[in-house]
Amino acid sequence: MSGVEDIKSFLEPESIAIIGVPRQVGTGSNVLENLLWYGYKGQLFPVNPRAQEILGIKCYPLVRALPGVVDLAIIQTGSKIVPAVVQDCVDRGIKAIIIQTDGFAELSSEGKGLQEQILSIARSGGARILGPNTFGVINTFRNLATPFAQFNLKKSAVSAISQSGIFSTGYLYEIPLGKVIDLGNACDIGFCEALEYLAQDDDTKIILLHIEGIKNARYFGEVAAKTSREKPIIAIQGGKSQPGAKLMGSHSGSLGGRQEIIEAALHQYGIIQTEDLEEMKDMTRALLALPPMAGNGLAIMTYTMGGAVMFLDACQQYGLTLAQLSDETTRKIKTLLPRLEALANPVDLMPFFQVDSTTANEAYKKLLYGLLSDKSVNALVLISASFSPIMEVLVPIITQVRRDFPQKPMVSWIWGPGQENLGNIGQFNYMSANSAARALNVLRSVNQNKLFRM
Amino acid sequence: MSGVEDIKSFLEPESIAIIGVPRQVGTGSNVLENLLWYGYKGQLFPVNPRAQEILGIKCYPLVRALPGVVDLAIIQTGSKIVPAVVQDCVDRGIKAIIIQTDGFAELSSEGKGLQEQILSIARSGGARILGPNTFGVINTFRNLATPFAQFNLKKSAVSAISQSGIFSTGYLYEIPLGKVIDLGNACDIGFCEALEYLAQDDDTKIILLHIEGIKNARYFGEVAAKTSREKPIIAIQGGKSQPGAKLMGSHSGSLGGRQEIIEAALHQYGIIQTEDLEEMKDMTRALLALPPMAGNGLAIMTYTMGGAVMFLDACQQYGLTLAQLSDETTRKIKTLLPRLEALANPVDLMPFFQVDSTTANEAYKKLLYGLLSDKSVNALVLISASFSPIMEVLVPIITQVRRDFPQKPMVSWIWGPGQENLGNIGQFNYMSANSAARALNVLRSVNQNKLFRM
Repeated sequence: MSGVEDIKSFLEPESIAIIGVPRQVGTGSNVLENLLWYGYKGQLFPVNPRAQEILGIKCYPLVRALPGVVDLAIIQTGSKIVPAVVQDCVDRGIKAIIIQTDGFAELSSEGKGLQEQILSIARSGGARILGPNTFGVINTFRNLATPFAQFNLKKSAVSAISQSGIFSTGYLYEIPLGKVIDLGNACDIGFCEALEYLAQDDDTKIILLHIEGIKNARYFGEVAAKTSREKPIIAIQGGKSQPGAKLMGSHSGSLGGRQEIIEAALHQYGIIQTEDLEEMKDMTRALLALPPMAGNGLAIMTYTMGGAVMFLDACQQYGLTLAQLSDETTRKIKTLLPRLEALANPVDLMPFFQVDSTTANEAYKKLLYGLLSDKSVNALVLISASFSPIMEVLVPIITQVRRDFPQKPMVSWIWGPGQENLGNIGQFNYMSANSAARALNVLRSVNQNKLFRM
Repeated sequence: MSGVEDIKSFLEPESIAIIGVPRQVGTGSNVLENLLWYGYKGQLFPVNPRAQEILGIKCYPLVRALPGVVDLAIIQTGSKIVPAVVQDCVDRGIKAIIIQTDGFAELSSEGKGLQEQILSIARSGGARILGPNTFGVINTFRNLATPFAQFNLKKSAVSAISQSGIFSTGYLYEIPLGKVIDLGNACDIGFCEALEYLAQDDDTKIILLHIEGIKNARYFGEVAAKTSREKPIIAIQGGKSQPGAKLMGSHSGSLGGRQEIIEAALHQYGIIQTEDLEEMKDMTRALLALPPMAGNGLAIMTYTMGGAVMFLDACQQYGLTLAQLSDETTRKIKTLLPRLEALANPVDLMPFFQVDSTTANEAYKKLLYGLLSDKSVNALVLISASFSPIMEVLVPIITQVRRDFPQKPMVSWIWGPGQENLGNIGQFNYMSANSAARALNVLRSVNQNKLFRM
């Protein structure tokens, strides 16, 4: 498990040297300043020959002048001197090096040469390189984030490995990420080691991948297949189109050539694939908040039959269907309110508006228990616009009843203002029929394929 | 054009009778109270035999007791007495009747009988019915909205015709709608008349349809084909799946049976189709803010090549491609910054970060002018996370330069916090590569098919 140990130095360092850190602070883009702001607990060694100290932290003129043990070096110097700096790090015994500098293989053939030189220096000294052209790592459990931009770090069970920093940093705004490894040009550390680390990491429950190309396809396949049995892996692949692939450039040693083959391989490894970041967000939110779905049967409660129609339309491609309620359930539910005579599945909730709130309260509760107790119901769906009676009456009841059925997922499609008043429902609320349906789909898929245990 | 005149009574009434209006106020669901709150300027005649006045407005015990001319009646009584009330309205000479009451054809065969009875009474008296089971109409240009829920009305060039009230009321939160006609059970007034009205309505520039079934397919086809040449029509169809259609119930006299045929017909009429409300929102926003796209050529400016790759992937299905810049443009742009030597299209914006802001400002401006002046560029795309330098520097420049190229659309995919600081860019900013790409697609489609003039 040397890959895991290697990555630990990047994500869990006790001491960090930042080489080429600028004196300018207050711009939000000084990594030293950011680490202090995050409250990083380890030792920090800024290296800058033109400064005595930055923000009260003693500066060192050269790598070789650094005292004590340095677990991780972050290089921010100009690209031309990076090989010399890497050599200094190797000589100093530093085993983990993040190279944030760009202008390497992604820029020119000259840059490609520099990159090869760096790698060879690192290899000869037994050091590992993350990058170049990477923002580095984020580990919110250690108050550690090396990107230039400042983020609000939040512990999260979702971790990511990306090939484009913007993916992870952008994604941070959408879904909190607990740990991030940005591979950048991936001259040394790639998906295999990073995935191995996240596989054994107890903080990580869900893994997101932004893939442009994968080296060591066989090693990756082994790690991915093993990992996906324990933790869901969702991947978005850049360069699936011919123009996208052309822009991306050829990744030597990547997983394969033809898209169909790559997709089939990822599928075989148990990796959930998506082509859209919004869909990835929907899926991730579902996996975070809800249990797997054990069958295809849906019970729908709706204030709008037009909405239920659209929802069923959206479900068809996933094979999710209306549950055939048992006679007992149907009988139980039909006694709830006088107006419910037309009720089946979907349940029309409009009659609940037309009785006093005490009666409605009791009826909602019995309805939820009835539907969730039915063997044929594998998931519950609530459809509505966000009218206040729903917020005030239904939300607390749902929150209460769900506790008794932890094994059955529930999603809602409640649109409109007041999303902040949805309380616990907000976790599994979606803004369109399609996004709610695909959230259920991922919960169904992970169970069906028995890809992992939650 | 009698259809148009008929609809005018619903959307532009000078006087409204509300029959069965409850005495209870303060709940947000009293239509009389809502109309006062909106500032509706016409006369209001509440009809309620158990009240002298409601909110200071004199009540009438019976329809026949109403004074003067009544343009529109809104019926909110129990379903069983609706036929008698409609008869009263007809006798009183009221020509436009909204029946909000539910419990008709959508509920039971008994309800279906009631509905037929109502229609026959109205027909015999030369009155038109909207509904039953409808929330009625919204005309923000007249401070008029008849749904039970209270909305913040806002004038808008987007109007909608729906068969499910929740579509329009839900949609109001997402995209302001200027005029809405909710057809409900559509026993009388249907898409044809409603569309004819919106076609000639100067306030309406874009028309959204939520379709479950269409009567008088031929008449509808004529109106739609004529209208779509002038104003874009975007439709979402409920019941496209077999389970969805089953739930929707059979709509007698609807446009046809097989989905492919309906879709082909809608396409032939020049109607843009979507299967997703989020997509409809993206399309509508694009049509509101941007000109049509004259060709397939994109110029991309990006702070992330990984993002540009994903964007090109998303564009492929729409046939949108990277513009082949002229040699002159390429030469012009390459002189902007020393680091730009690798530049082509997409333009890597990272080097703009690495120069002082005055230099960057000038270079951004020249870059934008260069790209937009190039004949091969039909649309400009900006990709980034919402880092503050973009907001502060780039947004004002874009706003300024766009004014000189009103005929070329621009979309951005800028994600992350601070969306509220995007200023004018916010209008055409999208949160994922896919949504930005499909926004461009609709701008391209409307131009390509010459379906309408903006």
